[in-house]
Amino acid sequence: MASAMLEVGLPAPVDPPRVEDLRLPAARVRLPEAQAERLGASVDAGVRAAHTYGKAYRDVARALAGDVGAAPDVVLFPSDEAGVREALELCAERGFAAIPYGGGSSVTGGVEARGLRERFPGVVTIDLTRMARVLEIDRTSLAARVEAGILGPALEAALRREGLTLRHFPQSFEFSTLGGWLATRAAGHFATLETRIDEQTESLRLLTPAGPLETRRLPSSGAGPDPKRLVLGSEGAFGVITEAWIRVRPRPDARASADVFFADFLAGARAARAIAQAGLHPSNCRLLDPTEAMLSGACLDGRAVLLLAFEASGHDPAGLLARAIEIAREAGGEPGKTRTKASAGPSEKDGASERWKRLFLDAPYLRDHLARHGLIVETFETACTWDRLEGLVSEVARAVAEAARRECGRAVTGCRLTHVYPDGAAPYFTVVAPGRRGDEVRQWDAIKAASVEAILAAGGTVTHHHAVGRDHGAGYIAEQSTLFDEVLRNAKHSLDPRGVMNPGALLPLPPSPEGRP
Amino acid sequence: MASAMLEVGLPAPVDPPRVEDLRLPAARVRLPEAQAERLGASVDAGVRAAHTYGKAYRDVARALAGDVGAAPDVVLFPSDEAGVREALELCAERGFAAIPYGGGSSVTGGVEARGLRERFPGVVTIDLTRMARVLEIDRTSLAARVEAGILGPALEAALRREGLTLRHFPQSFEFSTLGGWLATRAAGHFATLETRIDEQTESLRLLTPAGPLETRRLPSSGAGPDPKRLVLGSEGAFGVITEAWIRVRPRPDARASADVFFADFLAGARAARAIAQAGLHPSNCRLLDPTEAMLSGACLDGRAVLLLAFEASGHDPAGLLARAIEIAREAGGEPGKTRTKASAGPSEKDGASERWKRLFLDAPYLRDHLARHGLIVETFETACTWDRLEGLVSEVARAVAEAARRECGRAVTGCRLTHVYPDGAAPYFTVVAPGRRGDEVRQWDAIKAASVEAILAAGGTVTHHHAVGRDHGAGYIAEQSTLFDEVLRNAKHSLDPRGVMNPGALLPLPPSPEGRP
Repeated sequence: MASAMLEVGLPAPVDPPRVEDLRLPAARVRLPEAQAERLGASVDAGVRAAHTYGKAYRDVARALAGDVGAAPDVVLFPSDEAGVREALELCAERGFAAIPYGGGSSVTGGVEARGLRERFPGVVTIDLTRMARVLEIDRTSLAARVEAGILGPALEAALRREGLTLRHFPQSFEFSTLGGWLATRAAGHFATLETRIDEQTESLRLLTPAGPLETRRLPSSGAGPDPKRLVLGSEGAFGVITEAWIRVRPRPDARASADVFFADFLAGARAARAIAQAGLHPSNCRLLDPTEAMLSGACLDGRAVLLLAFEASGHDPAGLLARAIEIAREAGGEPGKTRTKASAGPSEKDGASERWKRLFLDAPYLRDHLARHGLIVETFETACTWDRLEGLVSEVARAVAEAARRECGRAVTGCRLTHVYPDGAAPYFTVVAPGRRGDEVRQWDAIKAASVEAILAAGGTVTHHHAVGRDHGAGYIAEQSTLFDEVLRNAKHSLDPRGVMNPGALLPLPPSPEGRP
Repeated sequence: MASAMLEVGLPAPVDPPRVEDLRLPAARVRLPEAQAERLGASVDAGVRAAHTYGKAYRDVARALAGDVGAAPDVVLFPSDEAGVREALELCAERGFAAIPYGGGSSVTGGVEARGLRERFPGVVTIDLTRMARVLEIDRTSLAARVEAGILGPALEAALRREGLTLRHFPQSFEFSTLGGWLATRAAGHFATLETRIDEQTESLRLLTPAGPLETRRLPSSGAGPDPKRLVLGSEGAFGVITEAWIRVRPRPDARASADVFFADFLAGARAARAIAQAGLHPSNCRLLDPTEAMLSGACLDGRAVLLLAFEASGHDPAGLLARAIEIAREAGGEPGKTRTKASAGPSEKDGASERWKRLFLDAPYLRDHLARHGLIVETFETACTWDRLEGLVSEVARAVAEAARRECGRAVTGCRLTHVYPDGAAPYFTVVAPGRRGDEVRQWDAIKAASVEAILAAGGTVTHHHAVGRDHGAGYIAEQSTLFDEVLRNAKHSLDPRGVMNPGALLPLPPSPEGRP
């Protein structure tokens, strides 16, 4: 579909390189045998290669090209907090860079050692996935204490046994961890209200080189600036999140959904805005523009489609859906069939919504497949207030089209709204363009730079939920008050005095010192 | 009612002292005439006396006793941001303590110069109430840019002209400002969802001695730790909030409410929990224990009462109320009459809910009246997870009763839940006890200390929405991670290098240096 829209024939696919063919840099970190065993240390080539990148397009392109020059020296797999503490002490004492690593699904360079080999005598990736237990469930307060390294499916399976769910389903769900969600302020399933993991976090525990920073288990507090909010979004730059109390809920037993079709994206956006401002709180309120609708198969006739759903436990959400459809109709929408589901059985398999959901889950696989065929396929996202939405979407589309034409000859750009708020929305862009073998990363970086510039000029943020990582560092500095940047740097200095925690992520590295590479 | 429950006769009331009888300390800050005029400086005795305290019981008791030894040297009334900047420069240059002041309704010593005259050559109160304009309304995004010094009624009046409302109604509504709400993370009208001003804040602007810190106008962002959250709750310790973009909404046009009666507080709490966990989002879900119900006249027969209300604009909330009543009934509640209101006219004047609301608004007046009669009347609040609620409420009641018996011979203690969350609630306590003339502040401080100790031991927070101020400093330090405390102190050092911003509020003063008073 994407290649058809681009009117290009796909070149033959490139096979991923074999591990034995990779030229990994020397593993510089040697640990005493007992310590290596305690910390689950691995210098295995496959393990180091697998921990070299996240899951952005530029990561896939570099991996396909066999470029693993930034592989960590060693990967540690601590199995408890004592292991994490020992790993941090090791790094602080010997000046090794420490990169916390959950599922490795960062799409903004959050887990890679870009520029670190030259500056640090060792690069140590700390993989948390052996810390994956649900430690406690408080059924009265509907909260669970969970280790940070648990992957999405394991967490949901453990909660399901108690009839509960976190219902945090980012696109990376299968390959991302609770700790990663917390460190990057991930956005999930809910299009309104609890849009991000922040709202589902009761308390958390961060292990820093200076000691633990744990927040009190509280439903809410007005005692000073909220300490949780310093840790949420800290992207490993202050320490390693080891566990958290998260808010869970009964599994919904009723669901009502419908697709509403619009002549164009802006008409759909007006409907999404009216619904977001009506206090109805849909669980899904995702708007696909005609390109996204077509790419996903949700709607093939050139219209935009708004995917609406309401979920409830113990009461019927049909009335709220009916009101939302009424609002959408007033904004010019044509509603399709309403679907209801009375029990928590498997969801219905028809409708634009379901087709879109399947593609949403399959998109990363498809992206990797298309990348092997030489296509640049990437997404980026932002958020802005409603008054700026139209201008932002058109300016970003224009800037991306212009950059893509220059770099790649042509491109297809789609836009959807993934999350909506009473005062604004999160537009999410997809770009597909033909890459030039060996030059794809530079091509994409040029397109991306144009998008960031357009987003910031139009009043958006560098990221709604993909985090800052290393790719958004410059944009983040441009977006942020310089005084807040100073506060963050001082916080880092308090918590990580030697500057070994994920250097360059969130807070960009200072320029390389004179006389060093 | 309160005195009847205490079985004491009230002594004759004390009259507030006359201004001309007050012995104010010398006004040490002299400004050049032109500057004094620019900044609206006042050394008028009445103005200085009126800015000496907030509105806690201990403030009222000290004011009644004519104790104004901690009055500021001068009160400035800047009328724009340039004035605030000049005031901060003045304070930073000359080492004067600067106390930002909105409506003066702090109940935790947030605006008083406790211990500051001895340490600073001048104490300057910066009253923001001349900065009270609504600067912009964005009807598309439903947001308004407002100066920080606006009082609640003026803000609502300006919004009402546009058919909008902020719907933030703390008990202090008439006498508190937007800036004060933001600086103290005030809780308002909504018992669920947007319980505090934090959720209604789109962006804000803080003027610090080091320059402005302004956050970007965004509905949401995942770019690093949220900068807004550093400013919300900063209590003037970092600078002066000068303006904010706040999220407004259409005035609700439908309301459905009911009172539900319970044999005791814990049965009512079980119902409140079940409703909070059912995803119904009532605007009101306040539970009064039998004492609170009796003191307020909401219910006189010794039962607890749950005040439920749902509000909506453009759809009917009656179904949600019906479901909430059903849940309350399953928990043993006996519902009273359901009331609905189809338009935004004046609300119905019957029912426990309305009686309670009247008392809620009148309580501060009544408190001042009873204080004149020698009664100690004060409230304090906390929040905890549901699993700890029963233990916390009984332990706090026990500790307060014990301390009050020791200090005052007897006391009446009531408890209500003011805000509910899926994972916990905010218990709010009222204490009425006979004071001993001239000793009331010490008596209350002893009771308060016992309550803080019991709250922290039982897993609560020192404050759900009364802020830290100077009264909760020690408890705040006990509650907080020491590393977070260090981060806050470094933040203060970045933003307020001379340490002149509201010294002692939020972050306690270090012990007085040796050899100084």
